[in-house]
Amino acid sequence: MRATFMYGAGDVRVEHAPDPVLREPTDAIVRILRSCVCGSDLHPYHNLPASEQGTPMGHEFLGVIEDLGPQVSGLKRGDLVVAPFAYSDNTCALCREGLHTSCPNGGFWASGDVGGGQAEAIRVPQAAGTLVKLPVGEDSELLPSLLTLADVYGTGYHAAKQAQVSPRTTVAVIGDGAVGLLAVLSARQLGAERIILMGRHDDRTKLGIDFGATDVVPERGAEGIEKVRELTRGQGVHAVLEAVGYMNAYETAVGIVRPGGVISRVGVPQYEDAPVGFGSLFGPNITLTGGPAPVRAYIEDLLPGVLDGTVEPGRVFDRTVTLDEVPDGYRAMDGRTALKVLIQP
Amino acid sequence: MRATFMYGAGDVRVEHAPDPVLREPTDAIVRILRSCVCGSDLHPYHNLPASEQGTPMGHEFLGVIEDLGPQVSGLKRGDLVVAPFAYSDNTCALCREGLHTSCPNGGFWASGDVGGGQAEAIRVPQAAGTLVKLPVGEDSELLPSLLTLADVYGTGYHAAKQAQVSPRTTVAVIGDGAVGLLAVLSARQLGAERIILMGRHDDRTKLGIDFGATDVVPERGAEGIEKVRELTRGQGVHAVLEAVGYMNAYETAVGIVRPGGVISRVGVPQYEDAPVGFGSLFGPNITLTGGPAPVRAYIEDLLPGVLDGTVEPGRVFDRTVTLDEVPDGYRAMDGRTALKVLIQP
Repeated sequence: MRATFMYGAGDVRVEHAPDPVLREPTDAIVRILRSCVCGSDLHPYHNLPASEQGTPMGHEFLGVIEDLGPQVSGLKRGDLVVAPFAYSDNTCALCREGLHTSCPNGGFWASGDVGGGQAEAIRVPQAAGTLVKLPVGEDSELLPSLLTLADVYGTGYHAAKQAQVSPRTTVAVIGDGAVGLLAVLSARQLGAERIILMGRHDDRTKLGIDFGATDVVPERGAEGIEKVRELTRGQGVHAVLEAVGYMNAYETAVGIVRPGGVISRVGVPQYEDAPVGFGSLFGPNITLTGGPAPVRAYIEDLLPGVLDGTVEPGRVFDRTVTLDEVPDGYRAMDGRTALKVLIQP
Repeated sequence: MRATFMYGAGDVRVEHAPDPVLREPTDAIVRILRSCVCGSDLHPYHNLPASEQGTPMGHEFLGVIEDLGPQVSGLKRGDLVVAPFAYSDNTCALCREGLHTSCPNGGFWASGDVGGGQAEAIRVPQAAGTLVKLPVGEDSELLPSLLTLADVYGTGYHAAKQAQVSPRTTVAVIGDGAVGLLAVLSARQLGAERIILMGRHDDRTKLGIDFGATDVVPERGAEGIEKVRELTRGQGVHAVLEAVGYMNAYETAVGIVRPGGVISRVGVPQYEDAPVGFGSLFGPNITLTGGPAPVRAYIEDLLPGVLDGTVEPGRVFDRTVTLDEVPDGYRAMDGRTALKVLIQP
């Protein structure tokens, strides 16, 4: 099969690789119908040290089950399924608490001996716990929206859920990437009536308005903080959904959150230490929450709205490439000429 | 009147001071019946630079209303009242959300032109919003327990509430000072069945067991973390109530919290930056919460249990001094020969 590998910053190649095979009785093999490039793939695209050994890429996919180990229950060959960006057994204490990303039998795609999703096929460990059957055909127009259940929609939803967004919550979303825009959509779904989107790419913030944003703040830093405070009569917002991961986004979050409010992070932090003392979080009783979204926990909740067309999270895809064109897809996302790139192998 | 002032680290004096007088129509004057020394008073006792100008001390008191401004409704001369450690109007948007410590018309005792509680009398700003009438007489044996509503009980309760402690929550409390012990009591009140108290003073942890602790871990640092992990089958606890405020307590909290769990801080942080990135809070979806407790929000909830004897938070007082003996009280708490010192002016 063909699969995507990264050999260093900016060096993405699509190559022939061995077809995946069943290794454990709990595995499945999935032929990939749709995959995509994630904003978080841009971190290694900027930073990965050059190596002769390529790193497999991609952690979002949906496809068709081609083969199953003998211990995989509830699924069969030919099922069209979506996979969350982390695999998990869905039966342990942590999965039952909705913390699938911390499952002791779980892990992440494209790490260890597990391949990536930007490929023609993949071995899925813990298939019964991981894969969710989708009641659509291979030609469904819903495939892009269904693919967002693998990561970006569930991640935006996690940000909003962890912040306990409700109709009484004033929300600000930092970041107009796919996760930020779907955090807007999620906050609206949870009833928020005032949603301020901080982003400065017109085409993206327009989609954010379609998804439910009531205000757009293109300014950044101190100017952006001042603008959000103006919009909230000086008080700040109850919930900040931080979908970027850089320290300046954290500082903005601290600057715009209301006393007693919540900063909910889903952008992977590109820092380890940050201010949390009396002068930042403690004094005004700010809660800091978030992390890698246990999207597996949300798929059943979010699926009906996608199937009945209530929401169209797939609108974040604004470009489609073949597998061979994946390097162009990375370039387009890195250069911000594409918001999110869909891959049709 | 006599009042307590600190002139530098270790230099506490009880001196004559002008009697407090009404300044604003919303003020009241309270004759103090009981006050106390707080663990947080030990921070300036260690660190306050020497000055010729004394700093008034004390933020916990109950007493009798001696005088009232014309705009103070709902209270009258002779009422026995308790004051939370922050005054507030109890009517603004933030107070209505339970964030009295962030009230724009509020503030803290012993700061600006407001005196301290380790004195014979005090001027109370925003008296109608701040003071809560207690249905007991001046000779009530409940006064010590009622005094804990001013700070340490409400603060321990805030830690447990912010961590959303419930019967399903495994809890660890870091610190065996008065706040830590009352965090134990609060977690038990909220239904927690497993409460691990991390502390190494036998007389204190014994009281913690009376208050509801099921396990005591005297070890600290890596050894303490290992012990708590052993007690929780390697998983860690759902909620850490951190009642110390030093960086090593924060590190212990990160070490013992379960994925998806909560670290709820009420010990005033003696640091500003701390680890919050992928390797500490973000990766395992840990929530960090807490701050100065809006104890005013909890007094009505906690009062009935004190009045009917269901709880005896006043057991944290193990020594009583007169106002003139307050410097001895500081020495005793600093030397850990007293857990918490009650002042009977």
